[in-house]
Amino acid sequence: MSDGAGPADEAASPGPAMHALLRELYPICRSITGDGVRQTLARLGQEIALEVHEVPSGTQVFDWTVPREWNIRDAYVKNAAGERVIDFRRHNLHVVSYSVPVRRTMSLAELRPHLHTLPDQPDLIPYRTSYYRESWGFCLAHRDLERLPDGEYEVCIDATLADGHLTYGECFLPGTSPDEVLVSCHVCHPSLCDDNLSGIVVATFLARHLARQSRRLSYRFVFIPGTIGAITWLSRNEDRAQAIRHGLVLTCIGDRAGFTYKRSRRGTATIDRAVEHVLGHLPERSTTIDFSPYGYDERQYCSPGFDLPVGCLMRSHHGRFPQYHTSADDPDFVDPAQLAGALATLQSVFEVLEHDRAWRNLNPRCEPQLGKRGLYGAVGGSGIAQLEMAMLWVLNLSDGRFTLLDIAQRSALPFAVIRHAADLLARHGLLAPCEPAG
Amino acid sequence: MSDGAGPADEAASPGPAMHALLRELYPICRSITGDGVRQTLARLGQEIALEVHEVPSGTQVFDWTVPREWNIRDAYVKNAAGERVIDFRRHNLHVVSYSVPVRRTMSLAELRPHLHTLPDQPDLIPYRTSYYRESWGFCLAHRDLERLPDGEYEVCIDATLADGHLTYGECFLPGTSPDEVLVSCHVCHPSLCDDNLSGIVVATFLARHLARQSRRLSYRFVFIPGTIGAITWLSRNEDRAQAIRHGLVLTCIGDRAGFTYKRSRRGTATIDRAVEHVLGHLPERSTTIDFSPYGYDERQYCSPGFDLPVGCLMRSHHGRFPQYHTSADDPDFVDPAQLAGALATLQSVFEVLEHDRAWRNLNPRCEPQLGKRGLYGAVGGSGIAQLEMAMLWVLNLSDGRFTLLDIAQRSALPFAVIRHAADLLARHGLLAPCEPAG
Amino acid sequence: MSDGAGPADEAASPGPAMHALLRELYPICRSITGDGVRQTLARLGQEIALEVHEVPSGTQVFDWTVPREWNIRDAYVKNAAGERVIDFRRHNLHVVSYSVPVRRTMSLAELRPHLHTLPDQPDLIPYRTSYYRESWGFCLAHRDLERLPDGEYEVCIDATLADGHLTYGECFLPGTSPDEVLVSCHVCHPSLCDDNLSGIVVATFLARHLARQSRRLSYRFVFIPGTIGAITWLSRNEDRAQAIRHGLVLTCIGDRAGFTYKRSRRGTATIDRAVEHVLGHLPERSTTIDFSPYGYDERQYCSPGFDLPVGCLMRSHHGRFPQYHTSADDPDFVDPAQLAGALATLQSVFEVLEHDRAWRNLNPRCEPQLGKRGLYGAVGGSGIAQLEMAMLWVLNLSDGRFTLLDIAQRSALPFAVIRHAADLLARHGLLAPCEPAG
Repeated sequence: MSDGAGPADEAASPGPAMHALLRELYPICRSITGDGVRQTLARLGQEIALEVHEVPSGTQVFDWTVPREWNIRDAYVKNAAGERVIDFRRHNLHVVSYSVPVRRTMSLAELRPHLHTLPDQPDLIPYRTSYYRESWGFCLAHRDLERLPDGEYEVCIDATLADGHLTYGECFLPGTSPDEVLVSCHVCHPSLCDDNLSGIVVATFLARHLARQSRRLSYRFVFIPGTIGAITWLSRNEDRAQAIRHGLVLTCIGDRAGFTYKRSRRGTATIDRAVEHVLGHLPERSTTIDFSPYGYDERQYCSPGFDLPVGCLMRSHHGRFPQYHTSADDPDFVDPAQLAGALATLQSVFEVLEHDRAWRNLNPRCEPQLGKRGLYGAVGGSGIAQLEMAMLWVLNLSDGRFTLLDIAQRSALPFAVIRHAADLLARHGLLAPCEPAG
Repeated sequence: MSDGAGPADEAASPGPAMHALLRELYPICRSITGDGVRQTLARLGQEIALEVHEVPSGTQVFDWTVPREWNIRDAYVKNAAGERVIDFRRHNLHVVSYSVPVRRTMSLAELRPHLHTLPDQPDLIPYRTSYYRESWGFCLAHRDLERLPDGEYEVCIDATLADGHLTYGECFLPGTSPDEVLVSCHVCHPSLCDDNLSGIVVATFLARHLARQSRRLSYRFVFIPGTIGAITWLSRNEDRAQAIRHGLVLTCIGDRAGFTYKRSRRGTATIDRAVEHVLGHLPERSTTIDFSPYGYDERQYCSPGFDLPVGCLMRSHHGRFPQYHTSADDPDFVDPAQLAGALATLQSVFEVLEHDRAWRNLNPRCEPQLGKRGLYGAVGGSGIAQLEMAMLWVLNLSDGRFTLLDIAQRSALPFAVIRHAADLLARHGLLAPCEPAG
Repeated sequence: MSDGAGPADEAASPGPAMHALLRELYPICRSITGDGVRQTLARLGQEIALEVHEVPSGTQVFDWTVPREWNIRDAYVKNAAGERVIDFRRHNLHVVSYSVPVRRTMSLAELRPHLHTLPDQPDLIPYRTSYYRESWGFCLAHRDLERLPDGEYEVCIDATLADGHLTYGECFLPGTSPDEVLVSCHVCHPSLCDDNLSGIVVATFLARHLARQSRRLSYRFVFIPGTIGAITWLSRNEDRAQAIRHGLVLTCIGDRAGFTYKRSRRGTATIDRAVEHVLGHLPERSTTIDFSPYGYDERQYCSPGFDLPVGCLMRSHHGRFPQYHTSADDPDFVDPAQLAGALATLQSVFEVLEHDRAWRNLNPRCEPQLGKRGLYGAVGGSGIAQLEMAMLWVLNLSDGRFTLLDIAQRSALPFAVIRHAADLLARHGLLAPCEPAG
């Protein structure tokens, strides 16, 4: 793979460019507030038209309050020799996110309760946060902890936790319909790639792609800190949320596994059926799981007061792979081709959303004679082509009760073929659009 | 098996007589119009009361037009020595059905595009048609094609394609109810046995059987050319079609496989449930598949403007066995016992349709005391007989919501036993008929 | 196991006390009427507040008539030497229940039709009854029958069949709600343990346990002769039956197998779902089967005129284990720990029934901030505890449509954890009770 992929190469294979953006974003120390998020959004703003919102600390958002803003310059633990035995400059996971400032000398015994490791994965640095309780801490490889001799250590977290803002980005792409598709990804994780630079990169490229397309639906991409960001967005956009017809949370979407789709709370929303349809026609194996209220921001979108049709598309399921929330979730863990595959899959899903509709068969009594219109094989007796089959399905089920997605699912044919069949039939005057359901 | 089976033997085992009729019909060169169909219907008219309809060429039937009538006297390809290297008199599959007349001498290179073979089944003659595009052609074994030397060939198809009629037959057996059962089979295939002389023969014997029974339901058997025949019938009988409560297309029903039932478009119509129930109690294994709009005339009956409850009963699924639409679908491919088995199975299905109804338990609070009526075993403590079990099921579920077929399905008992239980209970004043649902 | 278990031991492990009661009841010769039932109920009355009802012979109960009362003092068959070759005093299964009195001498050939054995289980005495046909008979081991030489035998059944009463017991435990839970077990079987001393003992201990609890629901325990008893009870309590919201028939519940739950006729009643939920969280494997109208008194409770939500909880399925209705269903066949396990399981089921209800999330838009209420782990990034997960589920689904049992089922978490989560959330003002559905 080459970093120097130009726009033409990119269209053929956007994977390298996606991965390059991911690597560029990797070193930034993001958290739920602070300059790391701003830097990240600024970089995304070079790719897509991104409106950045700043919400002051202390703002009440439903049951929550926008927290103070956290920024960190440096952090370390020095041994008696003055050597940095834990160094934030080497990896930003070394500091518990939202740690309050500290600058003290203490014994290892005093320090110990502030050190987080993974004894079962002794080479990896864990990712830990303490957003809603004032605290501080360091994360390190268990092997490194074991090597620390007793003695005095100089502990420094040069951070500020002060009134400021919560920052999020929004990219809105209006369509001819006010009906909206929401794509949401969290931008609060520091140097972790699958979770969630992969989601950020895929969303960005998706927005860039859709910006160049003609759109029936309107699309809203939100790049927000997890939980508090989604709550903030929903709190400020209660009315707008009612326009959301379909939505997806994107996370852990760049690793080497097949897709995992977690259904919306409704379970059979169009987004659920569209994703399941598209995944079902991929050559790789996918998994679909039911909604549960634990996960990423689908928790908020699917809270009972909103109950939005928002699912979550992943490859590996968050929390269920060994690299999750550790320093092993690095750029190598994410594969360019898998990023590109996720992009292509989402494009297919959105093609379904754009074009799913019910048609009415204008010749509903018996089949129309497709042959005389050049739509059907001339010599009888042998098999039937896929497009012919698709036309028969569309004609048979276009009684106003079934949309093209319904027909694709029932026929087990790809949506694109069903849609092509419907277009052909409409062009020959055999189908007319149904009025959309009220 | 003996061809000389008389009426008494036939009742015991109608298979030989059915197969004899099939062999008699085998040599006739049928197509979607023409004298082959007339000859076939004339022979069936010796078995059942068949009304033959003639519909003029050019008649508009929905989106279609009744085509010209095709008749063929002879056809061959002769080599330079004057020998018939392809000879219609040897097998009527040798000519593409509906071939326009031709009489020319041409090189093998010129002839080649008009020759149809099956390279993967080099000994078999394929069955090909060209109903709706003017064309001509020959079908032959691939091995025979390979033996043809270059050179000049005399090509002759002595056929006529001229205004005439589309011919179909109808046998109507009135019952006490105007509700109709439709049995449909296509009569357009030339010397092919499972598809569809088997369907024709089974339908004929079924009609003969039902003609001798007392009937609640009315039965309509249609013997029609595929597609255009069904469309023609529906076009001329739009009102009558509304009386069809249950229907079956019969095809490929005489080979050595277990049954395949293809559900109606509705999927849970009474005919679907009745067939599935009866097949489920057969010793042999059956397969049930969902409706699809490709197949035989269920495509027309189940078009959305009609949506009739018509399924399709087969043994091997058309198009999915190697003999299909080849010269190997000959009389040996169809088994007399399998024809008889299909007849018996359909009789069981129609028993269900005749007698399925809801009853009302007149003693709905607790069980009635069956023992004092002599309906229940006297000595307690051991098991229960099937008929007693059936009575308990009928009593328990006869609250007006469930029909006997519902009860048979839920209890996993054969419909005949459930029906017998209901009759016994009714005779003892424990059940009364429910008014039929509106 | 020790018979001397005192009240304190019993709370820890009620199995021995339950088994002791079973052994005490074992020798009594019960039938559908008579002193055996009275003696049994008198003994149960020492454990629970039992109201004993006497219904005169000849009373019409729906389609049935309360039969004459049967009492037996002695019965035997003596050989020519005056030895009792069959002796009621050795096992009360030796006499066909409800045998009319007889005192005659007869040949073995004359006697033979009155002798019931199990040729396939030659060492066991079968259990046979003749409630509704005047008859008499003896049951014996097939091996013993084969040993009987030809000759004259003195046959004596010293029984009375005379106007009297049908006796049943009822223990009613009122709750704050008039909604009732019915627990029904048959008390008509003589010396048979799993069927149904196990049910009697479990019901008795369950009533004793519930009597000491505060109760939302009212509980009605009925100890009745099978079939005629249930019919009599329903006939005398038609109005009361309408208050039954949940019910269980208990039988064969003390053997060493896992549970078998037979659903009510409705199939998805709350009792069905509650039992299935509780069984699904047991370490042992359980089986759930659909309702059928053959079995014990669920046959009457689920007759269509009542259609009460009454299932049947068993371990081994009646009629499907070799000891069933034979002398092998003795005290050793029932295990004290299994009796105690059944009691505990039913207590869990009734906990569900007591506490199942719908709550309303008072903070339905996004999640409430559990952390600030001390309800959620402080350090983020790692997993989630079961109780936290339960709180998320309760919050997410408490939109008024789902009860705690629904939530337990959908989350696959134990009801007790879901209920605890709801209590916590309510205590923190995050949930309010929904008005019960109308």
